[in-house]
Amino acid sequence: MLASKIATLIQARLIGSDVSLTHVAALDQADADGLSFMAANKYIDDLHSTRAGAVIVTVEHASEAPCAVLVAENPYLAFAHAARLLHPRRPAPAGVHPSAVVDASAQIDASASIGPLCVIEENVRIGPRVELGPECIIRTGSSIGADSRFVAQVTVCEDSLIGERVLLHPGAVIGREGFGFAKDGERWVRIPQVGRVRIGNDVEIGANSTVDRGAIGETVIDDGVKIDNLVQIGHNVAIGANTAMAACSGISGSTRIGRNCTIAGAVGMAGHLHISDDVHFTGMAMVTRSFPKPGVYSSGIPAMPNSDWRRNVARFRQLDELTRRIKCLEQRLERQSPTSESTNE
Amino acid sequence: MLASKIATLIQARLIGSDVSLTHVAALDQADADGLSFMAANKYIDDLHSTRAGAVIVTVEHASEAPCAVLVAENPYLAFAHAARLLHPRRPAPAGVHPSAVVDASAQIDASASIGPLCVIEENVRIGPRVELGPECIIRTGSSIGADSRFVAQVTVCEDSLIGERVLLHPGAVIGREGFGFAKDGERWVRIPQVGRVRIGNDVEIGANSTVDRGAIGETVIDDGVKIDNLVQIGHNVAIGANTAMAACSGISGSTRIGRNCTIAGAVGMAGHLHISDDVHFTGMAMVTRSFPKPGVYSSGIPAMPNSDWRRNVARFRQLDELTRRIKCLEQRLERQSPTSESTNE
Amino acid sequence: MLASKIATLIQARLIGSDVSLTHVAALDQADADGLSFMAANKYIDDLHSTRAGAVIVTVEHASEAPCAVLVAENPYLAFAHAARLLHPRRPAPAGVHPSAVVDASAQIDASASIGPLCVIEENVRIGPRVELGPECIIRTGSSIGADSRFVAQVTVCEDSLIGERVLLHPGAVIGREGFGFAKDGERWVRIPQVGRVRIGNDVEIGANSTVDRGAIGETVIDDGVKIDNLVQIGHNVAIGANTAMAACSGISGSTRIGRNCTIAGAVGMAGHLHISDDVHFTGMAMVTRSFPKPGVYSSGIPAMPNSDWRRNVARFRQLDELTRRIKCLEQRLERQSPTSESTNE
Repeated sequence: MLASKIATLIQARLIGSDVSLTHVAALDQADADGLSFMAANKYIDDLHSTRAGAVIVTVEHASEAPCAVLVAENPYLAFAHAARLLHPRRPAPAGVHPSAVVDASAQIDASASIGPLCVIEENVRIGPRVELGPECIIRTGSSIGADSRFVAQVTVCEDSLIGERVLLHPGAVIGREGFGFAKDGERWVRIPQVGRVRIGNDVEIGANSTVDRGAIGETVIDDGVKIDNLVQIGHNVAIGANTAMAACSGISGSTRIGRNCTIAGAVGMAGHLHISDDVHFTGMAMVTRSFPKPGVYSSGIPAMPNSDWRRNVARFRQLDELTRRIKCLEQRLERQSPTSESTNE
Repeated sequence: MLASKIATLIQARLIGSDVSLTHVAALDQADADGLSFMAANKYIDDLHSTRAGAVIVTVEHASEAPCAVLVAENPYLAFAHAARLLHPRRPAPAGVHPSAVVDASAQIDASASIGPLCVIEENVRIGPRVELGPECIIRTGSSIGADSRFVAQVTVCEDSLIGERVLLHPGAVIGREGFGFAKDGERWVRIPQVGRVRIGNDVEIGANSTVDRGAIGETVIDDGVKIDNLVQIGHNVAIGANTAMAACSGISGSTRIGRNCTIAGAVGMAGHLHISDDVHFTGMAMVTRSFPKPGVYSSGIPAMPNSDWRRNVARFRQLDELTRRIKCLEQRLERQSPTSESTNE
Repeated sequence: MLASKIATLIQARLIGSDVSLTHVAALDQADADGLSFMAANKYIDDLHSTRAGAVIVTVEHASEAPCAVLVAENPYLAFAHAARLLHPRRPAPAGVHPSAVVDASAQIDASASIGPLCVIEENVRIGPRVELGPECIIRTGSSIGADSRFVAQVTVCEDSLIGERVLLHPGAVIGREGFGFAKDGERWVRIPQVGRVRIGNDVEIGANSTVDRGAIGETVIDDGVKIDNLVQIGHNVAIGANTAMAACSGISGSTRIGRNCTIAGAVGMAGHLHISDDVHFTGMAMVTRSFPKPGVYSSGIPAMPNSDWRRNVARFRQLDELTRRIKCLEQRLERQSPTSESTNE
């Protein structure tokens, strides 16, 4: 594909000679057929020495590239669009693979593709151009909106509502009966989980992630939410539009997360919390209370040499006592020689 | 179903007019056909304004509901039983789906239900009324007790012993060869894992959770244990009866956990520990030693504004030094003006 | 198998009478047909009282066993080899199960075993003696080296390169399209992930673990790497030879880990880091920066009684303020009575 054509399609401006491009590549690994990009100044040396056929950069770096340049305001976003042009996904062929097990009551759009060894149960509805890869299971009463793609071995439990352009990765489990029990003496009695999962449009859920159905009512994943691998979403959680969650995080039941939040990897949230819009948790944050205001929140102790850590952890265990010792020192010193500041206390 | 009939079956006392109920619902969303409950005083406003047909409450709140009342000592437990009555699970039809791949040596009770695309290997035994959903794999020599239900895509590895009324959720992997290696210079040599998994009665294991078989001997999950999603149980772990574990936790090899413990989300335990009965770990607890006594144990730093966290973490790195500075201050002050307390030291 | 034969095959020296052994067993549970071992002195009492037919020990403990002895320099390693002799794995029968769905373009070695309900897509190459258990999915263009074994329900996405003697456990997902998005206003636009995964020889990846393909270029798991269950490996991560990772850990995108590292359970690593060879992270370590030098690194607060923890966490929030109070005390004391040390500051 010619650089000029890509420029037109991604609304970038071509500077330099028009070249033919076949694929995207990193700045430091690209060859003459490759299209690359620079999104951050720290890669400026790679830009100077790149052998790419063309690069996408902002206008301020347009003169620094040794090759054709596509000028864009947001090079990373422009690159995302260009990569889709150079690497279009081949749609799966329409139709139901003969090895799939499909209930007669299921309504499957003729343009949908149902892969080998899928299981489609009663009263399932599958919209136009949906692609189910191998060994996906769609249980009774669920529906899947147009253009959604389930890569492989996805399990969707009963009565789940899934929007359009939803991408579910291998091993994702949607709509499991959640973790709800009442105590009867020492024994646990399961609370039937009679709710469901509702997933909006343009949502993505990673490999081996799990989203439990509502105990009563719904677990809601709103439009544009992106969830990485190995993430747990408890029953009756609600996640607002365009919030993104990195891998290995877990959200306990009934917690509500706002819009446009980012939740880094391995974050844990207690249940029944309210998290505002525009909240950002850094990696491994431990979220035990509600956060009603936008902001960046953190916790955890970054790794240090083991011997330092051992000493500091021992002191952490004495922290309350240490505080009292400080207070005691202050009082003794105050008795000796009162300060003007202290009289204000 | 009439409220009076439910009252009889769950051993509650009906106060008010008998109404027909079709489903369970939350207090604030119920309509006239809905049965709701109040388990904690903080929902008292919802009780006052509910439009439910009936509610389950304790005797002290019986007069506060604007509708029929089912009086129970433990409303949440009574609700669990009532929900089962109003939402009975439809059992899967007995028999082996024609798409399942079943070895001729497997013994499957005629009342069991084997779903589409299951694989049942040699010498497997499956008890009465067991339900295997789609795409479950039961490997050689395993046995499954009566009334167990594996939802979908469960993998049970060789020689696993699984009790009665066990519920395994989609993607659970039981009996994997565990993580055991000996070092040979720089290389790792796998230790054959010749043990197995034994799961008691009334156990539940969540979606995409993993339970490794014993290296030698057994990994044991005792009666009534409830395990949430994405939990890892290492080889030769033993978990006592009625212990419950929330999502994203991991237990390293050979750790023994007592009965009636609760382990909140994202807890990590080292190997070869002994945890007493009635121990409760809060979320994200880091368990690096044995806990021989009942109690509530915690660790971790709850999330705070990022700027505060940065400052405090920097100080944590100096904590041992700070402690020494406090000690030094105390000594200097003591030299200046000895106190009577200090003479006791 | 006779102890003398095992001794020859594992290069150990038999002391005592030659006995027939049928299986491996723990010191405290073995019977007369059992072979056991002692790898650490703390099990010396178990050695004295064992009823095993033979034990593997170092020469210094050879006289302390009440049974036949196999003397080896590294008893645990010798035991690993002996266990393989006593418990050989029965290879799966060569050939493709009739229920598998195999594309005509796939090249499958005649000695390979393709289990029931596997899906093998276009242009896949499968080497000699490879074993795919039930319901594995190998997507377009992937290749698998000789003697690899995928236990069950493994998903290998497009164009993955997998070496020889690789062991993948149930539910592992290799080559997922990773978590890469550009922001377009409030919305996330997916970056096509056009790279792949390359896995070396003798690698092992645990149940329900996930390895994402490169965004551009490769995610690389080098020879001899061992990865436990429920581990996440982000796009473009590189892990050096013989590094081992325990369960529930997550590595963010583009982080490079050296050779011969050990990463304990539930460790989290940020993206774009460089970790040296021979680095060891203890459990739940929070890795937010590069570690260019070998060593043992740790973080986290071990669990303590909840009441202590509450008090100490409250003080942690004041740690920066506490430090200032210490400094203030030091200054006041200095003003009162300057020390010679302080004049050096």
